[in-house]
Amino acid sequence: MSEDMKPFHWPVRIYYEDTDAGGVVFYANYLRFLERARTEWLRSFGFEQDQLRSEYGIVFAVREVDIKYLKPARFNQQLTVSVENIQLKQASMAMQQLVSKLDADKSELIVKAAVNVVCLHSEQFSPCPIPKPIFKVLKACI
Amino acid sequence: MSEDMKPFHWPVRIYYEDTDAGGVVFYANYLRFLERARTEWLRSFGFEQDQLRSEYGIVFAVREVDIKYLKPARFNQQLTVSVENIQLKQASMAMQQLVSKLDADKSELIVKAAVNVVCLHSEQFSPCPIPKPIFKVLKACI
Amino acid sequence: MSEDMKPFHWPVRIYYEDTDAGGVVFYANYLRFLERARTEWLRSFGFEQDQLRSEYGIVFAVREVDIKYLKPARFNQQLTVSVENIQLKQASMAMQQLVSKLDADKSELIVKAAVNVVCLHSEQFSPCPIPKPIFKVLKACI
Amino acid sequence: MSEDMKPFHWPVRIYYEDTDAGGVVFYANYLRFLERARTEWLRSFGFEQDQLRSEYGIVFAVREVDIKYLKPARFNQQLTVSVENIQLKQASMAMQQLVSKLDADKSELIVKAAVNVVCLHSEQFSPCPIPKPIFKVLKACI
Repeated sequence: MSEDMKPFHWPVRIYYEDTDAGGVVFYANYLRFLERARTEWLRSFGFEQDQLRSEYGIVFAVREVDIKYLKPARFNQQLTVSVENIQLKQASMAMQQLVSKLDADKSELIVKAAVNVVCLHSEQFSPCPIPKPIFKVLKACI
Repeated sequence: MSEDMKPFHWPVRIYYEDTDAGGVVFYANYLRFLERARTEWLRSFGFEQDQLRSEYGIVFAVREVDIKYLKPARFNQQLTVSVENIQLKQASMAMQQLVSKLDADKSELIVKAAVNVVCLHSEQFSPCPIPKPIFKVLKACI
Repeated sequence: MSEDMKPFHWPVRIYYEDTDAGGVVFYANYLRFLERARTEWLRSFGFEQDQLRSEYGIVFAVREVDIKYLKPARFNQQLTVSVENIQLKQASMAMQQLVSKLDADKSELIVKAAVNVVCLHSEQFSPCPIPKPIFKVLKACI
Repeated sequence: MSEDMKPFHWPVRIYYEDTDAGGVVFYANYLRFLERARTEWLRSFGFEQDQLRSEYGIVFAVREVDIKYLKPARFNQQLTVSVENIQLKQASMAMQQLVSKLDADKSELIVKAAVNVVCLHSEQFSPCPIPKPIFKVLKACI
């Protein structure tokens, strides 16, 4: 089912802040890009994470990332970051996130990540079920 | 008076995370280094900022930075960051912070900053006097 | 003259990466936002900084920032960053940059910065005049 | 064999720059900590990465990270980051890196990462064998 969902895409421009003295994007910064795309993916359903926290008392936290660096990306390049292949469970979500470089007419895969996100009480940081209204919307869309 | 104080120094090593594709330290990252030195300067008096927050309900926040970039610093170099010339007021502190590169036998000035820090209620972020016990210790030392 | 120029504006969304445990944007990160706006301001004239480097052998480097933090900004808020009041010289530019928070119907000033940028040879990092074609375009537009 | 090596440890203090509005260390920042520990581990053998680049024309680049976030870490805490269980190959290294929180008398595991590092020509970013003098020293020590 999740295989059928159209991937969500979010554009990321590479600024000086993202690069390092090797001339390429510093490896930790791709996790910032992945987080931006997940935030915008939730927003695309109308879920604002500050409201999820104040209304439901929950936060989504990353439990695991398996990230493969396939090609370097450089200053000033334009990337797109996806959220796709979501596996929704009661208290967590697994998903794939791809970072690709957009050139004239082709797309080149830069980074491939498997991300596991859990739903936590925002105070105690203990696991809790994804609130029903959120679960239902996500379930319907993937 | 503050002129007599011996400057506080904190070492900073430049890692890949600190540099950019220009081959030098990214200009925003010096503000991270300045903050580390101020944190360690407060710690040198026994002031832990998480305790200042839980016990006194205050945070120190930066109100203004005037930072001059004099020379570039590069990957793997060893820097030292100072806190000096402190001007202590009831609800704020002004200070100078220098970032220098340590080489064999000389020190080279990289960055020079004038920093203004205010004392705020940690919840409302409204100005408040520096708590007496803290003020007294700082006053005696500068 | 520069007073007449319409300010350039660039939108910045606040993600988790930008905030700190105080619940607000970490003070160094505003310099990342300022840099993004300057990069996009140059791009709006067709100047790509990687091309400026490869074609003209120059980089623009920040020589001084005087930044005032007026109000805090929080996770998930939408900001706009300006470039305005440019003073163009042979080998440098001074400008003002404002960061404002966009709410329903008003704009609230968060950060105000005076920034001084110099033109440098990309290898030796020594000052050099802004290349004529760039100078002419900027001169005509401010 | 690598099992017998004593793990290398590097201390990391958590500053405001490392945390986010959730009150804990931002997940991408652990990769900064892992990189610092690997840099200092190489330095402990006398290998300075800027020299590896200028003398041998190589850089070590991360090919894959599988990182598990087990517990949160907070502002002002003291962590230790390890490099251990190194598997040395001709042109790459696999290793485990643990991030632990140091309290009074116990150590608590925060983050567990499996990291794969490859040796690349610093210009073309194409794979190349780890230079013999480096390989020999590492081989003898793990």
